Amino acid sequence: MTALVLDADTLLENITTLGNIGLEPSNEGRSRIALTDAEKLGRDQLVTWMKGLDLEVHIDEIGNLFGILPDNTGNTKNDALMIGSHIDSVFNAGALDGCYGVLAGLAVTKAYRDQNVSPSRPIIVAAFTNEEGVRYQPDMMGSLAHAGGLTAEQVLNSIGTDGTRLGDELQRIGYAGTMPLGTLIPSQYLELHIEQGPVLDSEGIKIGAVANLQGISWQKIQIKGKANHAGTTPMSMRHDAGYVAASIIAFLREITETMPGTLATVGSIKFEPNAINVIPRMTELTVDLRNPDNTMLMAAEQALAEKLEILRREEGVTIGTEVLARFDPVIFDESLVASIEKAANSLNISHHRMTSGAGHDAQMIARIAPSAMIFVPSKDGVSHNPKEFTELEDLILGAEVLLTTVDSLLSNVSG
Amino acid sequence: MTALVLDADTLLENITTLGNIGLEPSNEGRSRIALTDAEKLGRDQLVTWMKGLDLEVHIDEIGNLFGILPDNTGNTKNDALMIGSHIDSVFNAGALDGCYGVLAGLAVTKAYRDQNVSPSRPIIVAAFTNEEGVRYQPDMMGSLAHAGGLTAEQVLNSIGTDGTRLGDELQRIGYAGTMPLGTLIPSQYLELHIEQGPVLDSEGIKIGAVANLQGISWQKIQIKGKANHAGTTPMSMRHDAGYVAASIIAFLREITETMPGTLATVGSIKFEPNAINVIPRMTELTVDLRNPDNTMLMAAEQALAEKLEILRREEGVTIGTEVLARFDPVIFDESLVASIEKAANSLNISHHRMTSGAGHDAQMIARIAPSAMIFVPSKDGVSHNPKEFTELEDLILGAEVLLTTVDSLLSNVSG
Repeated sequence: MTALVLDADTLLENITTLGNIGLEPSNEGRSRIALTDAEKLGRDQLVTWMKGLDLEVHIDEIGNLFGILPDNTGNTKNDALMIGSHIDSVFNAGALDGCYGVLAGLAVTKAYRDQNVSPSRPIIVAAFTNEEGVRYQPDMMGSLAHAGGLTAEQVLNSIGTDGTRLGDELQRIGYAGTMPLGTLIPSQYLELHIEQGPVLDSEGIKIGAVANLQGISWQKIQIKGKANHAGTTPMSMRHDAGYVAASIIAFLREITETMPGTLATVGSIKFEPNAINVIPRMTELTVDLRNPDNTMLMAAEQALAEKLEILRREEGVTIGTEVLARFDPVIFDESLVASIEKAANSLNISHHRMTSGAGHDAQMIARIAPSAMIFVPSKDGVSHNPKEFTELEDLILGAEVLLTTVDSLLSNVSG
Repeated sequence: MTALVLDADTLLENITTLGNIGLEPSNEGRSRIALTDAEKLGRDQLVTWMKGLDLEVHIDEIGNLFGILPDNTGNTKNDALMIGSHIDSVFNAGALDGCYGVLAGLAVTKAYRDQNVSPSRPIIVAAFTNEEGVRYQPDMMGSLAHAGGLTAEQVLNSIGTDGTRLGDELQRIGYAGTMPLGTLIPSQYLELHIEQGPVLDSEGIKIGAVANLQGISWQKIQIKGKANHAGTTPMSMRHDAGYVAASIIAFLREITETMPGTLATVGSIKFEPNAINVIPRMTELTVDLRNPDNTMLMAAEQALAEKLEILRREEGVTIGTEVLARFDPVIFDESLVASIEKAANSLNISHHRMTSGAGHDAQMIARIAPSAMIFVPSKDGVSHNPKEFTELEDLILGAEVLLTTVDSLLSNVSG
C-alpha cells in the first residue's frame, strides 16, 4: 500500500484561482451567483482541473457537476465514495464556503494520481448546483434534487429573483447536461467545509467531526394592529403592532434560556407606516429557530405559538404566521463520524464532535447515503462575507483529515 | 348688545369648498402641501372669503396670512384677539385638520358682520404658513417664526424635501408678503381644532378645554452589534442589535406603566442587513416620549438612558442616541381656559379639561400671548388620513363655543 500525500500547494493555489473568478471591482469579495456568467467561468475552471486529473466528467440535467476517479477495474458507477459541496456563492462572498470542499475533493483524487494508485472503489467529486439559493430558491437545490426531493422539471422551471428561468440560464451557460438527475448514488458521502460559526475558532480546536445538523424552523409573523397618533392615543387604547413584534423578540431570547440548545434569531423586521409619531399599523418579522433535537425544536415552536395567542389577546391585534422553511434535524452516519475522528487522531490533530448550525448539501445527500462532514475553524465565525477567513494551515489540516478518512475507507490498489 | 349668531351653513359649506381644493384623483383625500399650487389655490380662496367679509388682509414676508376685523374705531393693530390655525395639509389628508380652526375664525367675524356690530377690540383671523412640516422642516414653522423662534431669513432659506427653497416657492405662488414678520402680536390667542385623538370621541364629550400641551421628546437610537450566522452562533456569543432594539421597545411600555401620564411610541425601526438568517449588525429606532409634566418627561428620558447603559453592557453592543426634537410642555392661559369652559357651560355643552397630545400653532403663539385651544371630537381619533371625521353637529358646537368665548372676551359695539 502506497502512502497518499496531499499536494497542499496546489490545493491552496486552486482556492485562490477559483476565488478570483467573479471578483468584485472593489477586490473585497467575489460574487459567483448560481448560473451567472461568473459561475460559468468557475465551472469551466473546475472542469479543466477535473480533466487535468483525468477524471470522468459528467453533468446532469440540472447542472450538477461530477468528476469521477475510477477504481482499478475502471468502474465509475458502483459503490462510490462521493466528496461534494458547491462552487456557487452569495454576493460579495469569501473564497472558501463550498469551494474548499470541492477543491479538497479534487486534492484527494490528485493524491491518488500523484502516487499512481487507484482506489478500491470509485471516488466522485461533486459540485452541486445552486447551494446558496440567492437567485433561485430553495437553497441546497442541486443536492436536494439529486436526493429525490425535487424533480428535474421543478428545478428547471424555477424562476429567479431576476425573473429568469433556471433551465434557460443553464442552457445559456452551457451546463445543461445529459445525465439524468439522480444517476450517481454513492455508497458514502463526505463533505469538508469551513464551520461558518465561531465554535472551533474560539475553542482553538482544529477539526469538527460533524455528527448532526440542526433542525431549522423558519416562519414569518405578521401582526396587524391599528395606526394611531403617538401623541394623542392613550396607552390603554393602543393596538401597537410594533410592541407585539418587540415582545416576540424578547420572548424568543427567554426561550433560548429556558430551552438549552435552542437558537432563536429575528433577523428581519418591517414596520408600517414606519413613521416616528405613528403607532405601527402592521409589522412583519421573521423567526429562525434551530435545534439538533426535533422534540425540542417542536417545543420551541409550540411555546412561541402560545405566546402569540397571549399577545393577540392582550394587545388586541391579529397575528398571522407563515412557515417559510422547516427541516428536521439530520443525524449523520455514526461510522463515518468515527472514521473522521480516527483520522484526526492518527494525525494528532485536535478535534471534537459538533453540530452543524448551517445547512449543507450533506444534509440532502444523507437522505440517500451514509454521510458526514468535517469542519475547519472560521476566524471569528465570519462567513458570507469577504472577511471569511481560515488559516492556510487549518485548511491544509482539514484536507489531510479528509484524505486520511478516505484512505481509511478505501483500499489502494497499485495503478 | 346684539346677540351674535353663528352662520353654521356657511361654515360647513366653506369647509367643504376648501376641502375640495387639492383633492386627490382617488377622491379619497386632499393634498395641500405648503406652498404648492394646490395650497396657493386654498390661500386664494381664503383671501377671497376674507375680502368678502371686508377684513383687512395682510400677508407677512414668510406668507403668514391675516384677515383683520377692526374694532369700532377702525383700529386693527392694538390689543387684538387672534383666532388662528393653518390651511396646509399632509398628503392625502382629511378636510378638518387646521382648516376647521381658520374657517371657524372667519365664521366668528361673519357673525359680527351679519349683525352689523363691531368688536371692542380687533379680531385677527390667522392662517400660519407650513404647520404640517411635510415639505419644509420644522413643522409649525409659520407660528414659530411669528413668535420669534425663527428669523424670516431662516424660514425663506429652508430647503424642502423636493430640493426647493421656501422663499422661491413663496414668490412663485405669489404669497411673499410685505408685512415684516412678527408685526401682529395679539393680546390673546384662541385655536379651535379637531382633537386628532380618541379621548373625546370615546368618552362622548363634545368639547375639550385644552389646558396644556404635552412636552415632546424625540430621539433616534442606533445600536451596533455584530452580524453573524443565525444557525452557527451560540446564544452566549451574540451581540444582537435586534434584541437590544426589542428590549428598548418592551422597556418603554414598562415606563408608561410605572410613570403614569407618559406616552411612549416606537413608530419606526430598521434592521441591517435585515436577512432572516443573519443576526442584525445594526438597528435604528425612533423613540417618541410625551408628558404634560416636564419633570416626568425628563424622568422617562433618564430611565431610558439608564436602560440603554444596561443593555449596552449586557449584550456587548454600542448605542448612540440623537435628539431629533425636544419641546417642553406648554401650559395654556388659565383665564382663557376658564372662559372656554364658561362658554360651553352657558351653551349646555358637555366639556372637560384636557391635554393636547399633538403639536399646534397655539403652542408657539403661547410664547408671545395668552393662548388656549378648543377641541372637538375626532371619530376614532383618526387624523392625517382621508377617514378623519367629526360629526357636522360637533363641528357646529365647537364653533359656537369659540364664538361665545370670543363674545365673552370682547364687548360688542354697534357698527
